[in-house]
Amino acid sequence: MKSIIHDHKSVRNYSQVRTVDEVVILKIINAAVRGSNTGNMQLYSIVLTTQPKIKQQLMPLHFNQPMVEHAPLVITFCADINRFSHWCKLRGTEPCYDNFLWFSTALTDTIIAAENAAVEAEYNGLGICFLGTTMYNAEEIAKVLNLPKGVVPVVTMTAGYPIEEQPLTERLPYQAVLHFETYRDYTDEDINKYYADFENLDKIKEIVKQNNLNNLAEVFTQKRYTKEAGNLFSKKYLDFVKKSFRME
Amino acid sequence: MKSIIHDHKSVRNYSQVRTVDEVVILKIINAAVRGSNTGNMQLYSIVLTTQPKIKQQLMPLHFNQPMVEHAPLVITFCADINRFSHWCKLRGTEPCYDNFLWFSTALTDTIIAAENAAVEAEYNGLGICFLGTTMYNAEEIAKVLNLPKGVVPVVTMTAGYPIEEQPLTERLPYQAVLHFETYRDYTDEDINKYYADFENLDKIKEIVKQNNLNNLAEVFTQKRYTKEAGNLFSKKYLDFVKKSFRME
Repeated sequence: MKSIIHDHKSVRNYSQVRTVDEVVILKIINAAVRGSNTGNMQLYSIVLTTQPKIKQQLMPLHFNQPMVEHAPLVITFCADINRFSHWCKLRGTEPCYDNFLWFSTALTDTIIAAENAAVEAEYNGLGICFLGTTMYNAEEIAKVLNLPKGVVPVVTMTAGYPIEEQPLTERLPYQAVLHFETYRDYTDEDINKYYADFENLDKIKEIVKQNNLNNLAEVFTQKRYTKEAGNLFSKKYLDFVKKSFRME
Repeated sequence: MKSIIHDHKSVRNYSQVRTVDEVVILKIINAAVRGSNTGNMQLYSIVLTTQPKIKQQLMPLHFNQPMVEHAPLVITFCADINRFSHWCKLRGTEPCYDNFLWFSTALTDTIIAAENAAVEAEYNGLGICFLGTTMYNAEEIAKVLNLPKGVVPVVTMTAGYPIEEQPLTERLPYQAVLHFETYRDYTDEDINKYYADFENLDKIKEIVKQNNLNNLAEVFTQKRYTKEAGNLFSKKYLDFVKKSFRME
């Protein structure tokens, strides 16, 4: 018997008629909360946005991806040491969870919660899409969502009832990411073998051609995720994270 | 109908008799691979360790948590820009995914894969436990697992058939982590209200008493996750991550 996970596709077009019941929303949130987390400290917060006014403010910060405006649910998952630190202080002890290790830990626990929410949403018939753009404009998103110091947005999930059937997205064969016992580094032959199916897809060849480039790797480095943009947004995200976490 | 996610408990004791079939292992790995990921770049690798010799080497690096030795499966999830960068170079273009943004992105995609693996494992009757200790001794773990530059271990999951029934672990009420539309910061009253059930559990009171401390928050800051240890391991992890990612 296959679990629903094996059918996951990102869904970007949602019914504008069928809303998501509160019962389903709470199942999604409770699934997130049930996730494993470090020391049961729950170093995350979940901001659920449904009001058009706020979605419209978020929209340009996600580079105008239309689902931010059209999805019934826009859920921003945040690494959060604010709540736990507040609790420590209120109990008369000094919190100490603002370093790089705890940023990485809070990020981990936040993403576990987010993926649980995604799986639960799909289990309930919804379609979801994760937006990595949250890290690109984290400070501006934090402003829209009133996030205080200690709360860093890390990923956004849009969700709603799908209005289209999507095919599964191709992945590398599992052998490409799985290592038995220890890591065996890749030879050039391995890389050629693992990426071949991908590179030979008609739609990939079309993308390469449209971009007037030689291959898919160039599409990544020269068009989709360039060094210049990456370095710019990286510095921007780090500067923002540093307002909450000492990155040392 | 409830999904399996709502029944999740960390399981640390596994059958030493019942092994995990390859069919089940491949379901788990394929569930991981199916997870959402940025640009379909799959910036992760999964190292599956089953040999006693290697598990024994990992054991002290996870502070001798016994399940590392006794679990049939020890799975280390790693953020991995090595494979993708190798592919870029082989196609004659320069990869540029070694900054802080891409570390955070790869970490995100790795954890999505890991949580999918966890849910799939439980769906197939296994019990799992995540080990956050992976970040504490990442460099030493990388050595045991032969991880090359560009591959950073982020979380480990042990898995096997459970030999005990575990109760659900308490969580904060969902209202404590969910914010409608925008974040509403916590008042002292909110904090008291949300943490009350937790603090009043008999087992929590017992832990506080055993540690000869005043409250649970002190147990965290003065015993479980102290400032001194946190800062030490944070610097250690950052130094290691910096060998693969420019943290800027």
